[in-house]
Amino acid sequence: MGKLLCGVDLGGTKLSVGLVTPTGGLVDRSIAHDHAAKTAPDVIRQVRDMICRLLERHRIGEPELTGIGMTFPGHLRFREGIAITSSNFRGWKRDFPIRAALQEHFSVRTIVDNDANAQSFAEFKFGAGASYDSMLFMTVSSGIGVGIILDGKIYRGMTGTAGEFGHTIVNPHSEIRCGCGNYGCLMAQAGGLALPQLVRRKLDAGVHTGLDFSDPEQITGETLKQGLDGNDELCRAVVFECADYVGIGLYNLFQIFNPPAIVLGGGLMNWGEAYFRRIKQKFHALAGNMLFDPIDIARSEIGADAGLIGAAALLLE
Amino acid sequence: MGKLLCGVDLGGTKLSVGLVTPTGGLVDRSIAHDHAAKTAPDVIRQVRDMICRLLERHRIGEPELTGIGMTFPGHLRFREGIAITSSNFRGWKRDFPIRAALQEHFSVRTIVDNDANAQSFAEFKFGAGASYDSMLFMTVSSGIGVGIILDGKIYRGMTGTAGEFGHTIVNPHSEIRCGCGNYGCLMAQAGGLALPQLVRRKLDAGVHTGLDFSDPEQITGETLKQGLDGNDELCRAVVFECADYVGIGLYNLFQIFNPPAIVLGGGLMNWGEAYFRRIKQKFHALAGNMLFDPIDIARSEIGADAGLIGAAALLLE
Repeated sequence: MGKLLCGVDLGGTKLSVGLVTPTGGLVDRSIAHDHAAKTAPDVIRQVRDMICRLLERHRIGEPELTGIGMTFPGHLRFREGIAITSSNFRGWKRDFPIRAALQEHFSVRTIVDNDANAQSFAEFKFGAGASYDSMLFMTVSSGIGVGIILDGKIYRGMTGTAGEFGHTIVNPHSEIRCGCGNYGCLMAQAGGLALPQLVRRKLDAGVHTGLDFSDPEQITGETLKQGLDGNDELCRAVVFECADYVGIGLYNLFQIFNPPAIVLGGGLMNWGEAYFRRIKQKFHALAGNMLFDPIDIARSEIGADAGLIGAAALLLE
Repeated sequence: MGKLLCGVDLGGTKLSVGLVTPTGGLVDRSIAHDHAAKTAPDVIRQVRDMICRLLERHRIGEPELTGIGMTFPGHLRFREGIAITSSNFRGWKRDFPIRAALQEHFSVRTIVDNDANAQSFAEFKFGAGASYDSMLFMTVSSGIGVGIILDGKIYRGMTGTAGEFGHTIVNPHSEIRCGCGNYGCLMAQAGGLALPQLVRRKLDAGVHTGLDFSDPEQITGETLKQGLDGNDELCRAVVFECADYVGIGLYNLFQIFNPPAIVLGGGLMNWGEAYFRRIKQKFHALAGNMLFDPIDIARSEIGADAGLIGAAALLLE
């Protein structure tokens, strides 16, 4: 069945290391949550130790690996393997040579790319995009990002920061500010980090809710999911407004790329079928008679381990 | 110096046929303005006659041509050479096999693509994009479109309609309706066809003008250019608002493609340096510290004959 792939999903809150088969099956994984406050070199040492323990547990040596693929939740210089910045790791110095730091500990090939690119490639190899030569993947999570697969390859742009779709401006007169400093970015209108602001605006507008939103810390995707399932008016309004903006985002991608398929993933897709249906409705309302060929708007098929399997899939590009 | 290229620029108001050298020099051209009301087959016969007369005038035979490249101002199925629809030619039936109809009259190779793609390739071969492997070209004219050059090739998408950037939504709460039926498309906020609506809104808001805008027919790019040069408050406000939206468009393209260069062309670029400067200011205000490598925001170098030279350049892809 070929050598195993080692995937490292370095997220803002979770660090996962896993062994993945060449066909995208997860063999085993280990998870840590204590990495985000560490320095970059310390995180790399932690990754090294987690990988070594995982290999030991399975009595696997490096020669039995194709390589190590790792995600980074921020801006990368892809070719150089340099982590420029990440809003997730405030303690990291700018321009950390992340790939070289990881490579130092291993003899097999290492590759580091951003999480949206990795997940898009997993969908392309193993998931909802497997029947297409080109496709787009949009992750809707704390932030929003896009992975662009053209003719079987990840399109990364000049620096490696292509696909930062969450920062495109879709509502220039918006009062909702994104972490980047601009107003009305797609991720400020429809990403998880914006939920407290979106809930606050609905409360200010007098939208009714049966839930207690007095603690902004408790306004998460999960809270809104519970409210949505309970038919709470405010939760429904926020989720549908987010869906409309994601639909606008999909439509914009359609006009720019004219792709055969766009796959949606990320944590907020857990809002479920009503959310996904509303996204598609908005997309089709806008595309109308400009859709000359069918486009497949699909949900991720990789599921919860998409980050880890995506990291590993980078080795197959 | 190699064979000549024949270019046909089929526009909404102007039909140009020209002979172009392999290095992008215009040898000669002829122009018609009576084509827009004709049926598709009649337009193709007109194009045939114009080409034949031009060849006769220069005592050139078909074997001395590399081929014939033609633009179409609308949606195309590129591979099949089919004109799906165009808002410019209401009399055309849907799905006209435009390339086959042209090819019928000639033994040399013919190619038909949309105007933004053609102009982008001219800039890439002969103009402001000549030193890049990849680049984007945005035409700001009656409408707005983008040509996407990736690794030396035009990216066209599944059907051939990629780059319809003018239809991306940048202001979903806008009251300005685009010809496509949606509100707040980029071309409804910053394209030439939207100027009467944009002027009307400034008049309604009480913005002062020394010009007489009582006849909406007279609200054109040229009128506004005169007002801008005369420091008219309303003209300045409209032109700068358009510039801000073009700047937003450039910024969105930057986040999506991370390209080394974006070239701006099209008739509204005649608004001049103040307009172009404002576009770049808006772009840089938004991009801020997310610009990790220099990006070249440049004006078209091909100029007035970009459509014709672009049509010919298609033969060099």
